[in-house]
This record gives sequence, structure tokens and C-alpha cells, in this order.
Amino acid sequence: MHAIHQYQEFFITYLENQKINKAPKNLYEPIDYILSLGGKRMRPVLTLLSAEVFDADYKKALPAAMAVEVFHNFSLVHDDIMDDAPLRRGKQTVHEKWDINAGILSGDAMLILAYQYFEQYEPIVFRDLAKLFSKTAIEVCEGQQWDVDFETRTDVTIPEYLKMIEYKTAVLVAAAMKMGAIIANTSVDNANLIYDFGLNLGLAFQLQDDYLDAFGDPETFGKQVGGDIIENKKTYLYLKAIEFSTPKKASELEKLFSLQMEDNSEKIETAKTVFNQSGASKATQEAIEMYTFKAFETLEKMTISEEKKNILKTFGANLMGRKV
Amino acid sequence: MHAIHQYQEFFITYLENQKINKAPKNLYEPIDYILSLGGKRMRPVLTLLSAEVFDADYKKALPAAMAVEVFHNFSLVHDDIMDDAPLRRGKQTVHEKWDINAGILSGDAMLILAYQYFEQYEPIVFRDLAKLFSKTAIEVCEGQQWDVDFETRTDVTIPEYLKMIEYKTAVLVAAAMKMGAIIANTSVDNANLIYDFGLNLGLAFQLQDDYLDAFGDPETFGKQVGGDIIENKKTYLYLKAIEFSTPKKASELEKLFSLQMEDNSEKIETAKTVFNQSGASKATQEAIEMYTFKAFETLEKMTISEEKKNILKTFGANLMGRKV
Repeated sequence: MHAIHQYQEFFITYLENQKINKAPKNLYEPIDYILSLGGKRMRPVLTLLSAEVFDADYKKALPAAMAVEVFHNFSLVHDDIMDDAPLRRGKQTVHEKWDINAGILSGDAMLILAYQYFEQYEPIVFRDLAKLFSKTAIEVCEGQQWDVDFETRTDVTIPEYLKMIEYKTAVLVAAAMKMGAIIANTSVDNANLIYDFGLNLGLAFQLQDDYLDAFGDPETFGKQVGGDIIENKKTYLYLKAIEFSTPKKASELEKLFSLQMEDNSEKIETAKTVFNQSGASKATQEAIEMYTFKAFETLEKMTISEEKKNILKTFGANLMGRKV
Repeated sequence: MHAIHQYQEFFITYLENQKINKAPKNLYEPIDYILSLGGKRMRPVLTLLSAEVFDADYKKALPAAMAVEVFHNFSLVHDDIMDDAPLRRGKQTVHEKWDINAGILSGDAMLILAYQYFEQYEPIVFRDLAKLFSKTAIEVCEGQQWDVDFETRTDVTIPEYLKMIEYKTAVLVAAAMKMGAIIANTSVDNANLIYDFGLNLGLAFQLQDDYLDAFGDPETFGKQVGGDIIENKKTYLYLKAIEFSTPKKASELEKLFSLQMEDNSEKIETAKTVFNQSGASKATQEAIEMYTFKAFETLEKMTISEEKKNILKTFGANLMGRKV
């Protein structure tokens, strides 16, 4: 086993050695661009980590890790078009730097390239990886569609919201880990358990992202604190605040989340006060802990050494402790 | 073996029994819509035909035929966004009926769904089909990118144009047929020969489409005759006319193909006269015949009965005789 930063380095070295950039350059340059923008590479690292947890060499998992990262970046490119986002990781988005057509077409090519990385495995493993990948990719599309639909709905429920973030975010984390298990040829039980571990950790991660978007430290959060409030996003914090408030307070919050204003600092402060006073902040932190706990519980059922369980636990704890 | 119209009926019955439409409906309704718009279903029919040419039951080839048709429709949905096209088969395009985001996301889902249809085959066949499919899909993306690039270039050569239509159109016809061969588990030689048959037939088909776009019968062509001329498309006819013309005549044609006008009837007549007088029309018809002949030549090398060779030949001849 290696440290997380080592898996990151292994993956980045592999990524940089991929010769994706060929003709026509207007198709492949955007792919090179988005893949080189960086990020924590959490998903491919989890594929490598998971392979070694189940006793395979991480090197065997590099093509699958690459498929996961290429797919993740495909979804960023297409989502950024849909959200009309100008920036991604502080740099121009693909459709801003080129145009919408380049974003659509190079995104399409990335989705196909992701599948091609599985061709490096023998037929049974290829089939298992590609099946899991297709199921996950469809769910990510469904999650994105729910997210788009929720923007114009005022009756989104907490279970619906949780299903949306499960599909949009958590299933890819789960699949990234299960791919490591498939490559390591571990038992079906272990493979399903690491999927559940990843799914619950992914849910905790996304809820934490919701929480930090309002209450994170601007120095360390990386995104604009209060961004979700500015964009009137109905996150877990918001939905819980509505649930816990009197009808009068709830309708005030609904009104606040229908406004577009010049200066948002007052709106952000008001929303944060409501989140705290209603108990929504506490409920969100409890949900994060609950999903993290559920992730750790699945570890107990896995037939791996205590040392390896502790590595996964430490990874989860570090991920959830990222507010410090 | 069955008649072509029977394969069409078998395929349409299969297509109509697919329950693609599930939640979220904003993702799946556009998929149902585009798949039900009709068309000749040429590509899936070729998959079924090819399977039976190599002695498999067409039923075994239905999921692969469906994958080919779903992929083809994915490419139509995304291309229509890129071309800003309002109509497809006389009906509103997906991004017109819904919006661009729906077009992007349901297109993405279709690309993934196409892969999922291969999951109905056993691992080796699944791997072979998915590999061929990925290679083909990437080439179609590259062909579309060349097509986009060519719009703003004035130095496109004939070989470049032929490569573009090969990738954008012919490889999918070729792959559709090779999939039938893979499912029938015929020899690698036969599978490669039917691919070449489809590739050359696909090239002939696209060149014929170029020709009919200018010289077709408005009653039977299905699209607006002269559409390529109106849109200043540098088709084979145009490129050959430039090649065969004096520098003065060539520059007149280039100028004609830089104009956007209110009334196009004069422009269309002028262009058609140049195509005829320069010898471009004749050269295009010769190229169509040459590629059709090349397709038929590959049949001679195939280890199938004369009767089956004749079925493929008749299909090709009918396809190329579609101007009558």
C-alpha cells in the first residue's frame, strides 16, 4: 500500500504519458486542456487505492482509473455548458475558451475514450468494468437531469434531493472503488461492500460540500463561499431549514431564495442565520456523520486485514475532516 | 434470408418494444421522440442482413442493430445542435422542441445506452462489438470535427473531403455490417471484407447524397434540393468543379459559395451549370460507380454462397439506384 499523495503522483504521471492529442486538433486540444487543469484526482486515486486494498498492484488499475477521470471530466465539460459556467478550477471552461460545439463534441469523444481504456483488460474484466461504467454513467446523466429539473421546482423533497446527489456524485465514487475490486478479482461480496463504502462516503462528501459552501473557510474552501445561496440552490441545508421552520419563516426563506441581487453579502448572512437557527446546520452535520458512519460500517463486513480497513477509514476521516 | 422490408419490420417491432422511457422524463422523452421519428433504418437493417448472410438468425443481431440505431440518433441530436438545425425528418429537432441542454444530456444518455445493448452478448462477443463500436464512434466524432473545420477553410483537398465523409458516414455503415459478422462468428477475413463492403458502399452512398442534393428529383429526394449550395457546402461536386475549372472560373465559383442570399434559385441554377460544364457532375457519378464497384469486388473474396453475394449486390444496386 502507498500513501494517498503517492497514488496521486502515480496517476498524474500516467495521465501525462497518455498521447490523447492527435488530429483533428480542434477535437483533441480541449480534451488535453480539461484533463490538465488539475484537481485532487480523488476518483482515480480511489480506483488505485481500492485495487491495492484487494491485493492487486495499483499499476493494473491505471487504465480504469484513467477511464474514471476521463468520464468525470466529460461530465464537467457538458455540465459547464448546461450551467453556462465561465470558470472551472479558476480557468476558462472549454466552451468559453473554444465554443459550445467544441465542448459538445470533445465531451462526446471523452465519453468514448473512457470506454476504450477498458480494452486493456481481458474480456471478462472488460465486460464487468464496461457494464458497471455504463450503469454509472447513465445514473450520472439522470442525476444531472434531476438537478436541472429541481432548479424550476419548489416542491423538491429531501429523499429526492438525496437521490439526486447519489446519482450525480456518489455513484461515480462508488464505481471508481468497485473497479479496483473488479481488477483485483476479489469476491463479489467485497466488491459490493467497497461500492457501498464509496457510495456512502460520496454522499457524505457532497453533503459536506453543501455545508462548506455556506460555512466553509474562504481561505481553504476553493470555491466562492455562499455560491449556492447566491444561485438559490435548494441544497440539503435549505431543504432542512424549510422543513424545520414555521410556515411563516419558511415562506420568508422561499422568498429570499427567489431573489437575484446586486450585493449578496446580506442575503448570505440572512440565509446562514436561518440555517443555524432552524437547526438545519446541525441536521446537515448529523447527516454527514451518519453517512460517514455507514461507510465505515461496511468496512467491518469486508474480508480484508484490519490494517487495510484502517487505511480506508483514515482516508474517509481525512476527506470528511477537510474543513480544518 | 429475408427481404429488406422484412428486416425493417423486424427492427421496428423490436425498437417499439424497447421500454426506454422512464424517469426523469426530461431525459428520456427526447430519446423516445428522436427514435420514433422514423427514417429508413438502413444501418440496423444492415446489421440484421449481415448476420443472416453469415448464417446467424437475425434475432441474435437485434440488440446490436439497436445499438447502431441509437448511436446514429445520438449523433443526429448532437449534430443538429451544432448545425443549429430546426428540422429533422420534417419534425422539430430535439433542441428546438426541448432546449439545448436537453439535447446535450439526452444525446449523452443515448451514447451510453448504445453500449448497454451489447451487454446482451457473451463476454468475447461483447468485447469485440464494444471495441469496434468505440473505434467507430471516435471516428464519427473526428469526421464531424473535420466537417465543422472545413466550413471555415478554403483549402480543403479532395482526399481530405473523402476522409471526412468516410469517418462521418461510411465507418458506421461498415461497422453495422461487421457487427452482424461478429455476432455470426464468421471468419476474421469475412468480417473484414464485409466491413470494406460497407465502407465503400457508405462512401458511394454519401457521394450520391452530395450529387442528389443538387440534381435529385424534389419529389423523391426528401430533403430540400440545392440545400448544400444554399449553405455553401464544399461537397465533392464543388471541389471537383474547382479542380477542373480555369483559375478565373474557379474564383467565380468560390465567390458564389461565399454569398448568403434572399432568393437562392438563381444561385442554385448557376452552381448546377458550373458543376455540369466543368465535368464535376460526371466525375462525381464516376466516383460513385467506382466505390460501388469496389464494394462489389470485396464480395468476390468472401467465402459465402453466390446466392448471398447476389443479395448483397442487389441491396447495393438498389441503394445506388435510389435516384429513380
